[in-house]
Amino acid sequence: MEKAIVLLSGGMDSVVCVGEALASKAQIYLLHMNYGQKTSEREKKSFMDIAHFYHVPEKNLKVIDMTFLRQIGGSSLTDENISVKNFQGDSLHIPDSYVPFRNSIILSLAVSWAEVVGAKTLYIGANHEDSPGYPDCRPSYYSTFNQLIKEGAKAQDISIVTPVIHLKKKEIVKRGIELKVPFNLSWSCYKNSETPCGVCDSCVIRARGFSEAEIIDPLSNV
Amino acid sequence: MEKAIVLLSGGMDSVVCVGEALASKAQIYLLHMNYGQKTSEREKKSFMDIAHFYHVPEKNLKVIDMTFLRQIGGSSLTDENISVKNFQGDSLHIPDSYVPFRNSIILSLAVSWAEVVGAKTLYIGANHEDSPGYPDCRPSYYSTFNQLIKEGAKAQDISIVTPVIHLKKKEIVKRGIELKVPFNLSWSCYKNSETPCGVCDSCVIRARGFSEAEIIDPLSNV
Repeated sequence: MEKAIVLLSGGMDSVVCVGEALASKAQIYLLHMNYGQKTSEREKKSFMDIAHFYHVPEKNLKVIDMTFLRQIGGSSLTDENISVKNFQGDSLHIPDSYVPFRNSIILSLAVSWAEVVGAKTLYIGANHEDSPGYPDCRPSYYSTFNQLIKEGAKAQDISIVTPVIHLKKKEIVKRGIELKVPFNLSWSCYKNSETPCGVCDSCVIRARGFSEAEIIDPLSNV
Repeated sequence: MEKAIVLLSGGMDSVVCVGEALASKAQIYLLHMNYGQKTSEREKKSFMDIAHFYHVPEKNLKVIDMTFLRQIGGSSLTDENISVKNFQGDSLHIPDSYVPFRNSIILSLAVSWAEVVGAKTLYIGANHEDSPGYPDCRPSYYSTFNQLIKEGAKAQDISIVTPVIHLKKKEIVKRGIELKVPFNLSWSCYKNSETPCGVCDSCVIRARGFSEAEIIDPLSNV
């Protein structure tokens, strides 16, 4: 049975990736990064809730503490001196929540763990449609990263897959419903830990996705 | 004045990189990774000693705690259950001390810091001649990483330079002497923290470099 690692932040894109990995019949390993974001405890709860929902054994779960990213700073997600802004409208500008080169840090760690456990596939819920401002959400970035694995890893046959990269948010919602993923256990808000604020980038994009898919977000009832 | 980050483990290749960065007239920032290796305190001492030798201000120094790599394991450098072997002879096999995908983790963090401080050049003392077994010491790996920066970073003009990658160890020793780098403050041993063991891979390669360069290693007198 092939092994796959899924990067599970706890957000809706990542929970759909868990659904895709299971649909491919892989034995799944779930990796969560606590990189010091303001809602990290809430996201970790989603990670654990989703892991339990799918009965993933403890030994296949890993939470990596990346709070040292606070030392580097430069993002509203990890730097207490930069506030999380409300949604600023769609734009090609890189938002304040951008953590410099974050996805490369996360993917490198994930590849390292993949080598240790022998996983050949690594799922990440990067989404280009809704993150035009993030340079590391572009498809070409992932093909270059796969090239880097071939050059720099002992296990050269590990590859990163990005099942939702070309989907619009409403299509991600629809795919998640098809795969019966527990959207009720996911978490997207960058600001709060009790109820979604409804006004940060992440909340606005999520709400629009559910609305356009004509599905009621289970989190809208909490 | 252009800013440069130097990845300074405290070993001889990295101290030569500090010399090269200063020779290029860059304002230097020094980055050290404590990634849970057995001799990490001793290496950190070398890092601080070299920083003080060159009068690098405190604000330009950063030590990142990567002890979470122990959670991932898989290497004799970070896993207490795998012992550091003595020198096994030159070979194309990947040694036990290989930390899976380590250089990608380190470089990603360094690029992140480079974006925050505005550094355009990132020096790393990777050396292909003496590390044929490490996939992430190959020149092609670094050109792919530079491509990844162009794809995935906000500051696309950051580039990694590898001044010693094609040098033999004896040439690194000679270049260091020309640049007047403080080899006496560097540290290479993987095993001990007081006096170099003389038998681990790193000690044997260092000794051979000094011997072939016909220079006495200042550490051989301690």
